[in-house]
Amino acid sequence: MTNLQTPQALYQYPKSREAFERALKVIPSGVYGHTGPSGGVMIPREAYPFFSSRAEGTRFWDLDGNEFIDYMCGYGPNVLGYRDPDVDAAARKQANLEDVVSVPSSIMVDFAELLVDTVASADWAFFAKNGGDATTLAIMTARAAKNRKKIVFVKGFYHGVAPWTQKLDYPGVLEEEVANNLTVPFNDLEALRATLEKHSGEIAALIAQPYMHLNFADNVLPQEAYWPAVRALCDEFDVLLIIDDVRAGFRVDMAGSDHYYGFTADMICFCKALANGYNVSALCGKEDLKDVVSSITYTGSYWMSAVPFAAGIATINKLKELDAPTLFARLGSRLTDGLVTAARAHDFTLVASGHPALFYLRLADDDSLMLNQEWVGECVKRGVFLTSHHNHFINAALTDDDIDITVNVANEAFSVLRSRHPLWS
Amino acid sequence: MTNLQTPQALYQYPKSREAFERALKVIPSGVYGHTGPSGGVMIPREAYPFFSSRAEGTRFWDLDGNEFIDYMCGYGPNVLGYRDPDVDAAARKQANLEDVVSVPSSIMVDFAELLVDTVASADWAFFAKNGGDATTLAIMTARAAKNRKKIVFVKGFYHGVAPWTQKLDYPGVLEEEVANNLTVPFNDLEALRATLEKHSGEIAALIAQPYMHLNFADNVLPQEAYWPAVRALCDEFDVLLIIDDVRAGFRVDMAGSDHYYGFTADMICFCKALANGYNVSALCGKEDLKDVVSSITYTGSYWMSAVPFAAGIATINKLKELDAPTLFARLGSRLTDGLVTAARAHDFTLVASGHPALFYLRLADDDSLMLNQEWVGECVKRGVFLTSHHNHFINAALTDDDIDITVNVANEAFSVLRSRHPLWS
Repeated sequence: MTNLQTPQALYQYPKSREAFERALKVIPSGVYGHTGPSGGVMIPREAYPFFSSRAEGTRFWDLDGNEFIDYMCGYGPNVLGYRDPDVDAAARKQANLEDVVSVPSSIMVDFAELLVDTVASADWAFFAKNGGDATTLAIMTARAAKNRKKIVFVKGFYHGVAPWTQKLDYPGVLEEEVANNLTVPFNDLEALRATLEKHSGEIAALIAQPYMHLNFADNVLPQEAYWPAVRALCDEFDVLLIIDDVRAGFRVDMAGSDHYYGFTADMICFCKALANGYNVSALCGKEDLKDVVSSITYTGSYWMSAVPFAAGIATINKLKELDAPTLFARLGSRLTDGLVTAARAHDFTLVASGHPALFYLRLADDDSLMLNQEWVGECVKRGVFLTSHHNHFINAALTDDDIDITVNVANEAFSVLRSRHPLWS
Repeated sequence: MTNLQTPQALYQYPKSREAFERALKVIPSGVYGHTGPSGGVMIPREAYPFFSSRAEGTRFWDLDGNEFIDYMCGYGPNVLGYRDPDVDAAARKQANLEDVVSVPSSIMVDFAELLVDTVASADWAFFAKNGGDATTLAIMTARAAKNRKKIVFVKGFYHGVAPWTQKLDYPGVLEEEVANNLTVPFNDLEALRATLEKHSGEIAALIAQPYMHLNFADNVLPQEAYWPAVRALCDEFDVLLIIDDVRAGFRVDMAGSDHYYGFTADMICFCKALANGYNVSALCGKEDLKDVVSSITYTGSYWMSAVPFAAGIATINKLKELDAPTLFARLGSRLTDGLVTAARAHDFTLVASGHPALFYLRLADDDSLMLNQEWVGECVKRGVFLTSHHNHFINAALTDDDIDITVNVANEAFSVLRSRHPLWS
C-alpha cells in the first residue's frame, strides 16, 4: 500500500535543507511561527522535513519525496483530509464565479446561516481571516458591551498573537497592552470566584479554551460540572463568557465545544477546522451582542473572500454527514491506545492526554522532554509526522490501516530508543 | 459591446435586497466593514448592489444580474482584472499539489525571493493574511528593536483595525492601547521635528502611508523633497520609518511607493495588490531588522497557505511585464480628465486628487458630500461602480473603451444632477 509498511532506509532531507538555506536569506528565521523548525513541532533538526511538495488525504510528501502520515494536519486546518474532493470542487465552482469583489457574494449569508444552524451558541456569524481576528473582535465587543477593561484569562492561555493576548516579557509587547489581563488557574472555581469578586464591576469577559490544550504539558480536561459552574459565575458577576474554539472547534462537537461541555458561551471563536484549510475564521455569538459587534470598527482586505465561504459550507456539511466528532474520537482513541501499548512493550510509559481528536503525547520520567523528542524524531524519519510539544489532530481521511502503520512505526522507534537507553525507566 | 453603451432602464436590486434581509438576521450589520452599505462606499441605499454573483476583468455582476464597471476593485485586490487567467492558472496548479500543510511549501521561498528582487527596501519578506497583520508586526518589531514605546502617526492615518491603530473614542478600544500614539500633520517637517525633539529617545517608529489617501477628503501628495527630509529626520533621531503600502503598493511603483518618492523605508507593508485577491499580506524590511522580526511571537493558522503564494508570484510577475504602474497612471489620468470634463459640461466642478492609479473624486461646493453621493448613485444605477468618500482603484483589465463608457455614464449622471439642481454652483 505504501512504503511505510516495509522496513526502509531512514528519511534524508537534502532538498529541504537546501531550500531552507535559501529561506534563511530572505525570510526571518527561514520558516517563522508554528510551522518552523524553531518555534514549531520541536522535531530534532536532523529528522525535520522543512518543506512540503504535495499533500493528499492524511498524508503529505516533503521536498525530497518522503511520504508522511501527518498527525499535525497543518496545525488543525486539515480536518477532512488534504485536498478533499468535495471541498475542492465547491471552492473551484466558486472561484470560477468570483472571490474578492467590491461587494460580497451572497454565499457569505449562506455560510452564516449554516453556522447559526450548526453551532448551539450562534445567533450570528462574523467572518475574518485569523483565529486572532475572531478573539480580538470578541474582546473588543466585550469591552464595548460592558464598558469595562479587564479580561480574565486561564493560566497557560493561547488566543493568538495580538499584543493584548501576549505576555509582558515577549518582545514588542507593551505593559499597557496587557495591563488589564487577569489570570486564574483552570478547573479552580474558588480562584475564579475570588477574582470576579475582587474585580467586581471591572471585568468585561472571561476568555478560555474549552479545555487546556497546552504546549509542553499534558492537556487538561474540565472537571465534571466545571463549565456550568463557570457559566453561572459569569452570569452572577455580569461577565461575558468567550470560548476560543479555534483549535478544538468541530473536532469535539459540531455544535461547539461549549455545547459538548454542557454550557452556552456568549461568543465563540472558530478558525482551523472551519473550511479544511481555505482561509477563513469566524466569531459567532448571542443575539444580544449583535448590535455591539456592529459598532466595532473592524474590517480586512480579504474578509469577504467568497471561495473560503464555499469551502466552509462544503466542509461543515461533510463533517456533519460523517458525524466527524464521533469518528475522530474513535480513531484518536484507537491510535493512542496502540501507541501506549507499543511504548509499554519496550518498558516506556507514554501518556496520552486531552480529547482523543486532539491528543497530546508525553513520555513519563522525561521532564526535559528530550526522550520524547528523540522518539518523535525516530517516528518522523520513518514517515509518521508527530510533534513533541503540541497537541496532534485527527482528520477524517485517516484509516484504521494508517493507524496500524503508525503503531508499527512507533513500535520500531521505541525499539531504537530502548537500544540507545537500556537503563531508562 | 455591453448594455452600458446604450440608454437603458436604471438598475433595480430586488434579489440583493432580499439577500440583505436574510443577512441582517445572521450577520452583524448584514454586511459589515468596508464592503457594507453602511461603512462602505456611501452609495445611496436605493442605488446599492448589496451582493455580487460573478466577476471578470474590470466588471462584476450583482445578484440581480446588473453589470458594473468596477472602480473599487474589491477595495484594491483586483489589480490585474477579476479572475485573471494567468494568476488563476498558477493558483489552480498549486491547489492541485497542496495549500495549508504542516510544513510550508518551498514556493514561500520563491515568493520571498521575488519580493526581495522587486521591492527596493526589501531584504526579507514575512507573510500573513491581513494588511493589519503586517502593520502590527512592523510596530512590534520597531518597539522591540528600539526598546521604546511611542509611535508617530500622520494625522488622518489608517493602518488597519488592531486596537493600537484605532482611535480612543472608537468602541472597544482602551486608552492604554493608544496611549503611546503621537500624531503629526502630513507635509509638515517642522511639526515632525518638534515631535521628534520633544520625545527624543522615546519614539520607536514613524508609520505613514506614502501619501494621504484619506476618506471623506481630497487625497494629498507629498511635497517635493518631503520624504527624503523625513528619512533624514528619522535617521537623526534614530527612529524607524515604516511605510504602509497596503493600499498604494504595486499600483504606484513596483519597487515600492518609498522608491517612487525617492527614499528607503526600514519596513514596508503590502497586502491588497499582492496576489490579485488571493489572501496574503507581507511585511518587508531591511537586513538589520531580520533578527528582531524573528524574535516576535507571531504566527497564524493560514499564514503558510501555498496557493496565495503561487498567485502572488504570478501577479507580481505579470504586473512587472505589463509595467502596470505606468499603465495605471495613463488610464487613471485619462479617466479623471474625462470625468472632470463631463462635469464641466454641466457646470459642475469635479476635483480629482491623489495618484491617478488611486484617484479620489469630490464635487466642489459640496461640503456635506451629498451632491457627490447623489452623482455617484446615478452612476451606479447606470453600471459604473464608484464611491463617494474613498479613493478608487485602477486595474490592468480596464480598457480605453471602458473609460469612454464610464465618461458617457458620468455625463448622463451629471445631466440628471443639473436637472434636479438647476441653481447649484
